[in-house]
Amino acid sequence: MKKLILLIGCFLMTVSSFGQQALGQRPRVKSPVVNSDGTVTFNFFDPTAQKVSVQGDFEEIHGKTLDMIRQENGVWTVTTEPLNPELYSYSLRVDGQRFVDPANSYVNRDISTLSNIFIVTKSADDKGHLYQVNNVPHGTLSRVWYDSPTLGQQRRMTVYLPAAYDGKRSFPVLYLLHGHGGDETAWGDLGRTSHIMDNLIAEGKAVPMIVVMPNGNPTCNAAPGWWHENMYTPDGNAFNNRGAKASMEESFMDIVNYIDSHYKTIAKRSGRAVTGLSMGGGHTFGISRLYPDQFDYYGLQSAAARMNPNDPKFDEQMKRLFDSKPKLYWIAIGKEDFLMQMNSDLRKYLDSKGYKYEYYENDGGHIWRNWRIYLTMFAQKIFK
Amino acid sequence: MKKLILLIGCFLMTVSSFGQQALGQRPRVKSPVVNSDGTVTFNFFDPTAQKVSVQGDFEEIHGKTLDMIRQENGVWTVTTEPLNPELYSYSLRVDGQRFVDPANSYVNRDISTLSNIFIVTKSADDKGHLYQVNNVPHGTLSRVWYDSPTLGQQRRMTVYLPAAYDGKRSFPVLYLLHGHGGDETAWGDLGRTSHIMDNLIAEGKAVPMIVVMPNGNPTCNAAPGWWHENMYTPDGNAFNNRGAKASMEESFMDIVNYIDSHYKTIAKRSGRAVTGLSMGGGHTFGISRLYPDQFDYYGLQSAAARMNPNDPKFDEQMKRLFDSKPKLYWIAIGKEDFLMQMNSDLRKYLDSKGYKYEYYENDGGHIWRNWRIYLTMFAQKIFK
Repeated sequence: MKKLILLIGCFLMTVSSFGQQALGQRPRVKSPVVNSDGTVTFNFFDPTAQKVSVQGDFEEIHGKTLDMIRQENGVWTVTTEPLNPELYSYSLRVDGQRFVDPANSYVNRDISTLSNIFIVTKSADDKGHLYQVNNVPHGTLSRVWYDSPTLGQQRRMTVYLPAAYDGKRSFPVLYLLHGHGGDETAWGDLGRTSHIMDNLIAEGKAVPMIVVMPNGNPTCNAAPGWWHENMYTPDGNAFNNRGAKASMEESFMDIVNYIDSHYKTIAKRSGRAVTGLSMGGGHTFGISRLYPDQFDYYGLQSAAARMNPNDPKFDEQMKRLFDSKPKLYWIAIGKEDFLMQMNSDLRKYLDSKGYKYEYYENDGGHIWRNWRIYLTMFAQKIFK
Repeated sequence: MKKLILLIGCFLMTVSSFGQQALGQRPRVKSPVVNSDGTVTFNFFDPTAQKVSVQGDFEEIHGKTLDMIRQENGVWTVTTEPLNPELYSYSLRVDGQRFVDPANSYVNRDISTLSNIFIVTKSADDKGHLYQVNNVPHGTLSRVWYDSPTLGQQRRMTVYLPAAYDGKRSFPVLYLLHGHGGDETAWGDLGRTSHIMDNLIAEGKAVPMIVVMPNGNPTCNAAPGWWHENMYTPDGNAFNNRGAKASMEESFMDIVNYIDSHYKTIAKRSGRAVTGLSMGGGHTFGISRLYPDQFDYYGLQSAAARMNPNDPKFDEQMKRLFDSKPKLYWIAIGKEDFLMQMNSDLRKYLDSKGYKYEYYENDGGHIWRNWRIYLTMFAQKIFK
């Protein structure tokens, strides 16, 4: 509450000084302001604009768009209804053009698009609290370069080491795979992985584990801007046609071998889980069939899990996998996900064979909001 | 050249489809396009804007501002004169308001302000080449949390491990300190440290070394958004008045002790260098006096090096420092730096005492362009 008053104070101070601002200088309006009742106020100074709105992933708001109201001092403003605890993304539309909010320096990149973010939290057991930074022990987040002999490349991945990692005790490893258009930064930035893991571990809800977030594009060495193609405009397809030496799934054990030889891991099946979203769910599906004796936990999130049930090899692989009795085969998807049919087909197949799996279905579609939920759930199911 | 043609092709393709774009949809213009002759073309679609310009740190351009010209299809465009090899920052001014370029997802944050970046390079021995990602072995970049007993805090720092780091061989350590308003991300993002180090080491110009970039604000545990104050608006002063338990300089050996106990280091004077910019130059100045037997190399970059020559303790500290014969005491500053007088005074003092130091003066002021140059120079002078 004290913080809120302080924020309001700052805002009034800056508003009162607008009269002295020449056009072209951006006054320091505060935006967004997350109010203590869960409403959120956006502010934007632009005396010449004709129409300004906020567009975000607000499930609560019709059309997910809020028109801002121009005040006499040239500040456009709007306050939402109370929002549910969540990490929100938004941008501004100024006379039809999309911009990030100049007053908010917190942004996420999704493929080539930047969006602002903010968090709403009301209590210590809601999603906002889980996604924010709390005063708990923090793990180390590293961008690690490794050699992939299978791909003939130096490649980058993100490695989360739990706060308890001391180079002596061994930890289990969760392999966490991104979707089409993503890269090794996606789960950390859009998925809030280190924040979620720090908080789940501190609360005793997940066991301390290493989380490995590789790059799932076998023709890119790293995220855009971080390898020798430098600052190209990522479009999710730029490098798809260049011809990789092998697929993500075929080269996957290069990653596992690197991790086991460079970190203190529980280097066996019971210490390994793999999960991914969309394309990464498809990778997980493939990995589960290629290396059925290497992982005990599988998570398919909104998975691009293309079956080929007419291929006798597919049946064989699936039989071998489920004969090996993995501890968890988990499928999670939102009701409105465009991959629902593919996942229904997979579940029908598993049912017809009597293969044991767990299924979770919730609202929403093919969105990060759901993948953060799935990571949170999956992380609590494994290594226990 | 092939790449250039491709880029131009993409641009024409998107331009030709503007007619089908409804107002409010952002067509995919390409911006910026770094042309092979070193000119740079900026493009921005906004059919309703009255005035659009590009503002950047273009030393070559009068006023550092370029007015964009509106074309019939609603695309504003401008091409620069050839720019010198460099990492450039810029933003757009649209009818007086400052925005990041929506077509460019590469941004740096300086305190609370985001700016777009791009690189111009012409040859393998220019600054642009040094600042970009080349096909060379890459080091690992980690955000590490450590305990500072002196400050009574869990704190975050950035650690660069050279590609050759294998956990067996020991490496020297460069401590690299940011300025006022900065944090543990500043040298990596604005200073391009990992890129510069990867390239200097690959070219044999610098010896492989660990680079430690701590947070120099003793009242902040980490960069904005990465500790439990969460997403506040950084202003460089927000937490200055909260009363730290100790100063950066007083708590500095907590960092050194952590690094020496968690990494394979050359844990003695000959394996340690410290340098910083502005406030971090002041910290370096203080550290050199507090621990004269711990570091062999000191670099003061645009340093806030406040002397107190009337204090007998100051004289004593300086005498003890220079009696210990550090291998390098380096002062670097730009001709237009507002801290020039302070540094001139320091040099006069050192001259009057006969203390040996090196001095480098170049054009420009208190800017990242210079600090990247100073890092590049300093890294090549140490541990040899």
